[in-house]
Amino acid sequence: MGSRSVSIQRAWRGNGESEGPHRPIMLAIAGDSAAGKTTITRGLVDALGSDRITSICVDDYHRYDREERKTKTFTPLHPDCNYVEIMEQHLQLLALGHPILKPVYNHKDGTLGRPLLVEPREFVIIEGLLPLHSKLARACFDATVYLDPPEPIRYEWKIKRDTTKRGYDPETVKEELARREPESAAFIRPQRSQADIVMRFDRPDGNTDPDATLSATLLLRPTIAHPDLANILTDDHHPAMHLKLSRDEDGKPVDALHIHADAEREITRDVEQAIWKELGVDENVPESLGTIDPTTRSEPLAISQLILLYHLFQARMG
Amino acid sequence: MGSRSVSIQRAWRGNGESEGPHRPIMLAIAGDSAAGKTTITRGLVDALGSDRITSICVDDYHRYDREERKTKTFTPLHPDCNYVEIMEQHLQLLALGHPILKPVYNHKDGTLGRPLLVEPREFVIIEGLLPLHSKLARACFDATVYLDPPEPIRYEWKIKRDTTKRGYDPETVKEELARREPESAAFIRPQRSQADIVMRFDRPDGNTDPDATLSATLLLRPTIAHPDLANILTDDHHPAMHLKLSRDEDGKPVDALHIHADAEREITRDVEQAIWKELGVDENVPESLGTIDPTTRSEPLAISQLILLYHLFQARMG
Repeated sequence: MGSRSVSIQRAWRGNGESEGPHRPIMLAIAGDSAAGKTTITRGLVDALGSDRITSICVDDYHRYDREERKTKTFTPLHPDCNYVEIMEQHLQLLALGHPILKPVYNHKDGTLGRPLLVEPREFVIIEGLLPLHSKLARACFDATVYLDPPEPIRYEWKIKRDTTKRGYDPETVKEELARREPESAAFIRPQRSQADIVMRFDRPDGNTDPDATLSATLLLRPTIAHPDLANILTDDHHPAMHLKLSRDEDGKPVDALHIHADAEREITRDVEQAIWKELGVDENVPESLGTIDPTTRSEPLAISQLILLYHLFQARMG
Repeated sequence: MGSRSVSIQRAWRGNGESEGPHRPIMLAIAGDSAAGKTTITRGLVDALGSDRITSICVDDYHRYDREERKTKTFTPLHPDCNYVEIMEQHLQLLALGHPILKPVYNHKDGTLGRPLLVEPREFVIIEGLLPLHSKLARACFDATVYLDPPEPIRYEWKIKRDTTKRGYDPETVKEELARREPESAAFIRPQRSQADIVMRFDRPDGNTDPDATLSATLLLRPTIAHPDLANILTDDHHPAMHLKLSRDEDGKPVDALHIHADAEREITRDVEQAIWKELGVDENVPESLGTIDPTTRSEPLAISQLILLYHLFQARMG
């Protein structure tokens, strides 16, 4: 355990040093528009600090600006609407520790702008619509996540965001959602089956209050080594969360971790520390996990992010 | 010879085909601002057609726009003012037959714009200020050229171009030339010694008429296999051009091909065909070579471009 702890805390070697570029740990967070990718990512970046972790949104690889898209029949969800081959190339470069000159799509005004130099740090998060679309892209990641909220909740989130932050009116957003649905089905949702972890934030059964705290269900596929939750979770933890062996939609076996919407901080803290202890890390569990906005904290979100953080460190220890 | 001819005329396989990306032949044309890079390049692109040859200007790899550069002490000639590492990466990708998303610098207004997808064709010309700056970049080329006009002529060209096409007044251009001189000496001119061919267009001795037709002197370094001019050029060709064994500035042996400003088309055509014949190509010598503008043709330019075309085909035959 002593040497592991040293391994985690060793200083990050930048690319300029003599041993050649250091390969970062790469995490993909895929999901449809407004599925919660940015919220999940922000907590991880805040936890590790921007000097240790870089996050990139691969929606920047849009091939057309908003004006040009008006002449196209497909939506931004379609691979043909994106420089998928360049995205794959850049993922490979980052995975090898090389810098990239990343294109930039401005969501505010729908224009394509001046590209940006991105140098991989210790960890890289790639979030967006299509990071798991192709085998070549998937091969670049140490861990992959698909965000899978129920569609009615995602629709609410998208309407709320696009009307407040991107200047659309609600009717336009609803029409756009309808127009995108066939391409969501064809290109976005198939990525669900490619992820190591599928996350679903949902209202507790029967609760229709739009401001209700959400529960989380995490499908933990045996494609990567998850923390040993079967041993960590005791009866004491049951009021907050439980692990259930189940079958996925496709019939394959999977562990489903459910964290209740009203999970008590006292219990989740205990679980967090047990998970964290498995890593053999001396650092404390980062306090920034679970933050939805400056005044709102979610225990299901905190546990979900902690499991991703676990995988980042786990992958680095090789 | 029959099979060579087939080899030259075989259809170009695009990147989408099953045998994997086809590596293009890469030619570098380096030189200071207004040294004539675009004129040389244009003739080659016109000769081969834009479906066979891609040309890229690596000045697009400027790190700062014109506004930002005002706060910097260095000029665009300085490697620190350019994404040299990204340029090297993109040259490597192109050399391997991969597409790149190339940054774009707008010379007209000095802004950095939306990047552009570039897919390598059969041949790729890379022209700019610093394509031969680093060993890694140089390793990407099949042939390399440095344009080396006398500084007074280059100054005239730069003043003429920047006042007519880029909206500067002459005094500003002169001040800029003076400001750039130390970095020209430090970063641009050292590339001369790295090129396979050094081209100097100059006024005939004693002629100071700014509109005088220029002669060309080509230093042909033994770093690549040039056409066998020692055998091709006979006494009949002497009124138009001659080959002289000489020593370069650094004392190293080099062949110097001098083409007189007033070389007669009848003679240069004979030489062109002899050079072309060495390749074993059935196609005619392209007529577009030697074009300075729609009404002006230069035999020294035509021969210089033909030798570059020779190297493009020669390299492709491997």
